[in-house]
Amino acid sequence: MGSRVRPDSLVWARFPAWLERHYPQGRATVLSESDIRAAIAAKKAKQESFGHWQYARLLHEWQGLPRGTLFADGVVVPGYPKIGRVQTLTGVLSQFHAPCWVEEKVDGYNVRLFRAGDALYAATRGGLVCPFTTDRLPDLIDPAVFSAHPELILCGEVTGPETPYIEGTSPLVPQGIGFFLFDLMRQGVEGFFPVEERRALARSFGLPAVPFHGRIDPKDLGRLREIVRRLDAQEREGVVLKEDSPRNFRAKYVTGSAELSDIASMTQRYLDVPPEYFTERVLRLALFLEDMEEPDREEWWHRQLGKAFLSALRERIAAARQGRCVGSFCCRFHAQENAVRLLDHLGQIRGHEGETRLVSLQDEGGAWVLRFEKLYRSTTGFLRNALGGSLRFD
Amino acid sequence: MGSRVRPDSLVWARFPAWLERHYPQGRATVLSESDIRAAIAAKKAKQESFGHWQYARLLHEWQGLPRGTLFADGVVVPGYPKIGRVQTLTGVLSQFHAPCWVEEKVDGYNVRLFRAGDALYAATRGGLVCPFTTDRLPDLIDPAVFSAHPELILCGEVTGPETPYIEGTSPLVPQGIGFFLFDLMRQGVEGFFPVEERRALARSFGLPAVPFHGRIDPKDLGRLREIVRRLDAQEREGVVLKEDSPRNFRAKYVTGSAELSDIASMTQRYLDVPPEYFTERVLRLALFLEDMEEPDREEWWHRQLGKAFLSALRERIAAARQGRCVGSFCCRFHAQENAVRLLDHLGQIRGHEGETRLVSLQDEGGAWVLRFEKLYRSTTGFLRNALGGSLRFD
Repeated sequence: MGSRVRPDSLVWARFPAWLERHYPQGRATVLSESDIRAAIAAKKAKQESFGHWQYARLLHEWQGLPRGTLFADGVVVPGYPKIGRVQTLTGVLSQFHAPCWVEEKVDGYNVRLFRAGDALYAATRGGLVCPFTTDRLPDLIDPAVFSAHPELILCGEVTGPETPYIEGTSPLVPQGIGFFLFDLMRQGVEGFFPVEERRALARSFGLPAVPFHGRIDPKDLGRLREIVRRLDAQEREGVVLKEDSPRNFRAKYVTGSAELSDIASMTQRYLDVPPEYFTERVLRLALFLEDMEEPDREEWWHRQLGKAFLSALRERIAAARQGRCVGSFCCRFHAQENAVRLLDHLGQIRGHEGETRLVSLQDEGGAWVLRFEKLYRSTTGFLRNALGGSLRFD
Repeated sequence: MGSRVRPDSLVWARFPAWLERHYPQGRATVLSESDIRAAIAAKKAKQESFGHWQYARLLHEWQGLPRGTLFADGVVVPGYPKIGRVQTLTGVLSQFHAPCWVEEKVDGYNVRLFRAGDALYAATRGGLVCPFTTDRLPDLIDPAVFSAHPELILCGEVTGPETPYIEGTSPLVPQGIGFFLFDLMRQGVEGFFPVEERRALARSFGLPAVPFHGRIDPKDLGRLREIVRRLDAQEREGVVLKEDSPRNFRAKYVTGSAELSDIASMTQRYLDVPPEYFTERVLRLALFLEDMEEPDREEWWHRQLGKAFLSALRERIAAARQGRCVGSFCCRFHAQENAVRLLDHLGQIRGHEGETRLVSLQDEGGAWVLRFEKLYRSTTGFLRNALGGSLRFD
């Protein structure tokens, strides 16, 4: 790690000497403070703060670094890159050229846990420090891992009914919240630890990890189909395949039940979501059904898809009749100030700009329990107009 | 009607003297040739031709005239205005203030049939003369009506399995094509004939008209619900309500089965249609089910909605595996040249710009039978990529 210069100033990305060891072919990028300032001026990056801690995050890809990369005094936390989707099992055949690890894809929100100075932080995909996840970080993992390896970045999924972001629920976390490690990075270094190295480190520090479904030959589609079919029956989201080869290629494949569950939960905010959110999932469901080769289940799927849309819409119509369409959330915090920061933070996240309304914040048995609602403004407005009998020219 | 000046030149809108009689309150608009030229220069109108006949059409509303208004030497055919939709039966209660006629809404394409000089033409909604409908006009109605009333504009719906535009089918026309009159206008005059006057004229000339479902008190929602429920059970599109009052207010209300049938037929070209086409129909279906108050049919509707998407997508996936996703059309013509004009015309219509491919054009027992395909390029491309195993970053 680079040494700190002035703790309260914006001195970015002290270049770690070992970066050059990892990228000997000239892929290393030396970033100075003025580079970051230029990125901010060019609207590629944005300056942020969490309490007194100041940092910048990339709003877009920049100089080969992914969106969501976070810079602070002595710290570079690379953004978590997008993982491509194979939409059919054929994609596994054509994209993978060596045996691959099958890891579960958990339905939640992506975080990177890291250390800066003496503090631990959790950043969301876009590179914002999340007040909720940061507050609850010691409940998610044993912080001892950062004492031993301060440069580590733990990449994983947070899910459960008590998060501020997730509208559906994962069967893996029936209550509260949970963390599932799926990758390790090092500060200032692009690229992930090899799967086995990551698993060994997770075991030795007792880090909770995504369920592991073995190592398969990508030509053995029958075995993969069985894994996916079982996950689908349990309404789990899908798999990430990681090729066991130097290129460490990876791709995701999602179950039909995850498409349905996305449709049902986002229908709660039907008109506050881009329409292609729904049409893309319907299409992926159709492709999934082709892959599963279960013609006798066809009618069952028809009913489930219709229900995903229509049950949720019926519930929303009833809500609009009563008043407003909202999403209700409940999260627990150690520190009251983090709950207040979260409410502020929600106003800044794309797709969450809608009105967030505090319902209550109170100490319940030693934890600060925050209850809040998100107003789904377009859904409410459209349904109230329709129910009120307004004319529509479309 | 105004007199012709130079038959082959663009002399527009000879102002008909009787327009002032119809709009004595100063609503009359006098249009000169230079006005129309200015509208063309301002991209509000576009110059078109059909054979040697030249005309202009409005691409946008202009000087109070609706989009689709057509101008030619001595002829002004007003565009057919949009009819607002009530999305719930409550809308009927709140929008209508006097008894109203209930007429069937037929699922097809909107045309205006009119006379110019000695010829009869059919214009589509956008104001383009349709080579197919114009060719077949004498099969749709008895042209005698234009000998008696040359200034009339017959507004109606054309539907059936042998049209160049409709992908679904209407149960009202199981084979060939059919025309259903729903309004009468006069050239150069905005506004419609009163319903009873139109019906009397249609009877005396034997003009086929949209099915008529009586005159109701808008407060009698029970009666309207019964009419709609019966139409829905027969997979018919819905109703247009026309208030029997001087303001001649009108609104449409569509059945759930029509939403399903739109979803199923447009899923044939799933990715060549804006996604909101589907999400809006799903939402309208949910509102329709609320109105019908039939909780015991809930599961049936779930299955139908899922099937509308998934059966059509399964068929498209199979088509993409074989090669391309296309729509196949067959139309009959009296004149070979009109078939050729249609193919040319299809390239100009918004939403039909995709590749149109002639399959065959041949004389079959005295009729020119045109078979053609529309290539659904985005649907084909997406599905072929997905089936080929390509990665997608979404």
